[in-house]
Amino acid sequence: MAPILLNCMGSDHKDYIKQLVQVKNPYLDTMEEDILYHLSLGTKTHNLPEMFGDIKFVCVGGSSNRMKAFAQFIHQELELPGNPEEVTDICEATDRYCMYKVGPVLSISHGMGVPSISIMLHELIKLLHHAQCRDVVLFRLGTSGGVGLAPGTVVVTDKAVDYSFLPQFEQVVLGKVITRSTELDEGVANELLQCSSELQNFPTVIGNTLCTHDFYEGQGRLDGALCSFSHEDKLEYLRKAYEAGVRNIEMESSVFAAMCRVCGLKGAVVCVALLNRFEGDQITASHDVLVEYQQRPQVLVSHFIKKRLGHVV
Amino acid sequence: MAPILLNCMGSDHKDYIKQLVQVKNPYLDTMEEDILYHLSLGTKTHNLPEMFGDIKFVCVGGSSNRMKAFAQFIHQELELPGNPEEVTDICEATDRYCMYKVGPVLSISHGMGVPSISIMLHELIKLLHHAQCRDVVLFRLGTSGGVGLAPGTVVVTDKAVDYSFLPQFEQVVLGKVITRSTELDEGVANELLQCSSELQNFPTVIGNTLCTHDFYEGQGRLDGALCSFSHEDKLEYLRKAYEAGVRNIEMESSVFAAMCRVCGLKGAVVCVALLNRFEGDQITASHDVLVEYQQRPQVLVSHFIKKRLGHVV
Repeated sequence: MAPILLNCMGSDHKDYIKQLVQVKNPYLDTMEEDILYHLSLGTKTHNLPEMFGDIKFVCVGGSSNRMKAFAQFIHQELELPGNPEEVTDICEATDRYCMYKVGPVLSISHGMGVPSISIMLHELIKLLHHAQCRDVVLFRLGTSGGVGLAPGTVVVTDKAVDYSFLPQFEQVVLGKVITRSTELDEGVANELLQCSSELQNFPTVIGNTLCTHDFYEGQGRLDGALCSFSHEDKLEYLRKAYEAGVRNIEMESSVFAAMCRVCGLKGAVVCVALLNRFEGDQITASHDVLVEYQQRPQVLVSHFIKKRLGHVV
Repeated sequence: MAPILLNCMGSDHKDYIKQLVQVKNPYLDTMEEDILYHLSLGTKTHNLPEMFGDIKFVCVGGSSNRMKAFAQFIHQELELPGNPEEVTDICEATDRYCMYKVGPVLSISHGMGVPSISIMLHELIKLLHHAQCRDVVLFRLGTSGGVGLAPGTVVVTDKAVDYSFLPQFEQVVLGKVITRSTELDEGVANELLQCSSELQNFPTVIGNTLCTHDFYEGQGRLDGALCSFSHEDKLEYLRKAYEAGVRNIEMESSVFAAMCRVCGLKGAVVCVALLNRFEGDQITASHDVLVEYQQRPQVLVSHFIKKRLGHVV
């Protein structure tokens, strides 16, 4: 693009560029074709700007059924034309992830754990880049174990912390460990807390989220196939976590926060606590109760989206 | 149990105990109920010995569609009564994993990455323990990137190695990092190689498998949303991997090997290489070619199972 054109566009152009989803890979735009393998999409086989150019909100979560349910829910909430039951999976050619587009909202599943969400995020961020999306907010809507919270409480993550309660994510790059910050967008977190106080139908807190790489030993559960520690050791670790500001434990927030930050995306992690880990390890609530809990992050984020779109004041 | 009874049972009893699937958790047998949450099974809601007591072979793989296809394939191969198309998902109440039982064979999906397979393995090993299964062999049937191999080559893993090419898996337990060995069963690996030489329809090698925690930066791909290294840096890392005996790269073998070893289970990792990473990063083979490649580990393991069951000599 000629410099004179850039000058003409002035600060508007800078803002335009700033709001674009940024990949941090100099090779990407030199590739003749980019196959987003795990999404079963590609730059040659699909018109990504046409398909996704109007996306403003991306909501991701572990379970494919839950992210389909969220797509149907947000379809109703935004009062869009058509039958919410008929949302179709854009990634139906693969079973790795599912993806639904509902107006300006994209709903995608990411499976369980950092590696699984990391693959999806790489391909999602490339998709948003190829589609020239601007001003996108990303949400992770999940489930978690609560630390000193009543079951059903929604936690909006301040910082995602590692097993030492540090706000960092260790990424291996060609055999070397590098560290990335896992601080999330403070403005979006506060806006979500404000939404919760308007809704007044479930408790919501802002707190740190411990991100582990397994569900059993790393989270101090006594009910895995392997367990080498005592009940007291477990409680001591949970107490230390609580003192470090941890209010819930899940398995994806650290890489989500790190990648949002590196790519200049505003991101938030909104997880409901299914149990209080000080009181147990097994998830024993009834199916109906669990279903209602899992809807809470959806209700909160839906309210946020409706406010941003001017549907509610 | 009274000592005199143990004495009466002599060495037969010892062998019986030895072959049982071992959990390494003293608390487990004191629990009134064990809910295998992510499998949607439990000791109170299901008769696990009746449902699973005859299992001798467990085959796991990332994709739910692929593991359903394997269940149908092994149904045909073992010439069992009934329609192979009608296998039913035992875990249909959850979308986290799928599970099919075909005679003495269990076929389960595990999603992508170490944390995802780790949750499934904890609950699977507890299931095999509760069901009093004996003498079980576990296989991971997967896809991978080849290192200096022609696409389509099947790699039977000798050792699963980490990013430094060491045969170890780092597990965080209550905030402390412990290290577990990732050596797999040599006998089963050699038996698989023997099966391949009998089949003679695709190349199979035994080699080390690099297990990474992401698909892009950790594997030296130049086509992720983030890339901070050069093409030459990438090739140098792959060359070092090759010199350390690495023949393929995937994302689950280390915790699979570590947990099999700790629990005294014989395990093998059998992955097909979808591409040669010295030649590129993107998976560009046609759908039909990829489908045929993905059947190769299934064909190999099926031959192993048939030999063990005496269906082929």
